Amino acid sequence: MNFSTQYNKYKNIIDKRLSQVTIYRKPNSVYFPIKYILEGTGKRIRPVITMLACESVCGKNNKSIFAATAVEMLHTFTLVHDDVMDNSSTRRGRKTVHKKWDVNTAILVGDEIIALSYKELLKTSSKNIESILKVFTNGIVKVCEGQALDKEFELRKNVILPEYIKMIDMKTGSMVSSAAEIGGIIGGGNSKEILALRKFGESIGRAFQIQDDLLDAISTKKTFGKEVGNDIISGKKTFLLLHAIKKAKGKDYQLLKSVINKNGTSGKNINKVKEIYKRLGIIEIALKAVKNEISIACRHLNKLPASKSREMLFWFASTLLQRKF
Amino acid sequence: MNFSTQYNKYKNIIDKRLSQVTIYRKPNSVYFPIKYILEGTGKRIRPVITMLACESVCGKNNKSIFAATAVEMLHTFTLVHDDVMDNSSTRRGRKTVHKKWDVNTAILVGDEIIALSYKELLKTSSKNIESILKVFTNGIVKVCEGQALDKEFELRKNVILPEYIKMIDMKTGSMVSSAAEIGGIIGGGNSKEILALRKFGESIGRAFQIQDDLLDAISTKKTFGKEVGNDIISGKKTFLLLHAIKKAKGKDYQLLKSVINKNGTSGKNINKVKEIYKRLGIIEIALKAVKNEISIACRHLNKLPASKSREMLFWFASTLLQRKF
Repeated sequence: MNFSTQYNKYKNIIDKRLSQVTIYRKPNSVYFPIKYILEGTGKRIRPVITMLACESVCGKNNKSIFAATAVEMLHTFTLVHDDVMDNSSTRRGRKTVHKKWDVNTAILVGDEIIALSYKELLKTSSKNIESILKVFTNGIVKVCEGQALDKEFELRKNVILPEYIKMIDMKTGSMVSSAAEIGGIIGGGNSKEILALRKFGESIGRAFQIQDDLLDAISTKKTFGKEVGNDIISGKKTFLLLHAIKKAKGKDYQLLKSVINKNGTSGKNINKVKEIYKRLGIIEIALKAVKNEISIACRHLNKLPASKSREMLFWFASTLLQRKF
Repeated sequence: MNFSTQYNKYKNIIDKRLSQVTIYRKPNSVYFPIKYILEGTGKRIRPVITMLACESVCGKNNKSIFAATAVEMLHTFTLVHDDVMDNSSTRRGRKTVHKKWDVNTAILVGDEIIALSYKELLKTSSKNIESILKVFTNGIVKVCEGQALDKEFELRKNVILPEYIKMIDMKTGSMVSSAAEIGGIIGGGNSKEILALRKFGESIGRAFQIQDDLLDAISTKKTFGKEVGNDIISGKKTFLLLHAIKKAKGKDYQLLKSVINKNGTSGKNINKVKEIYKRLGIIEIALKAVKNEISIACRHLNKLPASKSREMLFWFASTLLQRKF
């Protein structure tokens, strides 16, 4: 069985479980939208990492299904509330919850998903359930703090790169690292293995986010699955923009500075900004940063015993580089 | 020391702890509003119940401080998000979070408070931490389901009394009963005592909500601390209105029905509706229901060993009847 088929096997386990968590629950006004968002398409990256992390330290993946599902639910809650805060209309090709229903429903749906994710996590049978809950909880605390920083950055003109890295580590990285760490704990890993898995998750999370920034500048709508150049139009202080503003001079600097100062720019400037990114070598810098994080992630994996699941995690890390969407 | 002084002693412990949970935490964009809302005035009913419940089964109240604080935090999260959903401007005499800041901040603040409440709860040292977490989590699930029902009822014209009771049991009762149950578990109560505390909380929660409905119809602005008659103006399907519509005939029925059908009425009808409540004996019915729930609550307390804390819980239940705000 190749890695991709194997990945889908894990993904299907999560999809199946996600369709079970709301069954028979009422009232419909909150559970219909919860079903809608939990059963939508999703790559299920975080829960698959949890299951693989569990296996990689000699645990059985079925021990981690509830925790993995909880991790995906928690991720879904952040999407629902972030979409309200960003006033986004679509998510994974479908209407966002607050557009299909309304803002009040989306708020309540997010809240209820948090509670249900704890309910799911608490189904885990592990003598270390307390540690698992602490890691999970710290993950949410960090995600919210990261979201707060992200929102602060929208209003600030002077964000610098280390601040940005800190923000994505919190907003994206913390749940990926928690996902991996929780899998390691459930699998019965020793403290070094668990730390290695956590560090693996941190680097994967960071690589994923920088790749996301990169794709907005180099992908096409067809492969990206959504409009490209959106980050430029909205003046988002991405890895690329923050790097470019450090290097740019003269007219280049003026244009990038105006994108930041005016919180965005018109669509006709997308290509100009992209051209600056290319000319200043920003695309290569970002690509190198992604590769670097992935190689750090893999170095951490090397601390785990050799196994099929570790191979899967290696494969998974390397596929990030080929990610087009 | 009299009961009231004693109550304030417990309340002060919670107030102090609430001021500590956010200390040194950043970013300010989320923690300033969290401090604002956690450190506002509040009766701290739920956490005091947790501490008394713990003591009443021979536990020490300092064992339950973290859990009690977590319970109050969870209650505060529901206030912040409910205020957004109801678009309320004031809470406990001050601006609501979404009015003082904005809706996005209020959403994030609520989310972060949920996470912090789990963090606080997880500080509890108890061999039964898993049960405690399950009770706490089920509490949130029920609160959200209750809120969903409450919002559904706003749109429905045919809500009946048993549905209303179910809704308040979920929205108000579930956190009060969880608060009492968690205290009982931490205190090391046996299963009968823990169940008695849970049932005590359920009845107290129900009594509290019916009393709330009652005060809106019989209190004065000065003692109630907010406008009275608001439920009538907004056509809220309260214990009183749902009872009255069952009993009313002729013109009375027409007026009450129009309050329900039009989702409210003008201020000039407040006194007419109040007059109907009086004439049909609805005020007495509500008062009797509150008394009945309080006596059920006290019967459950009788299953606990006699102690100072149980006396405090008896006193607390009886003061509900004298509650004016």
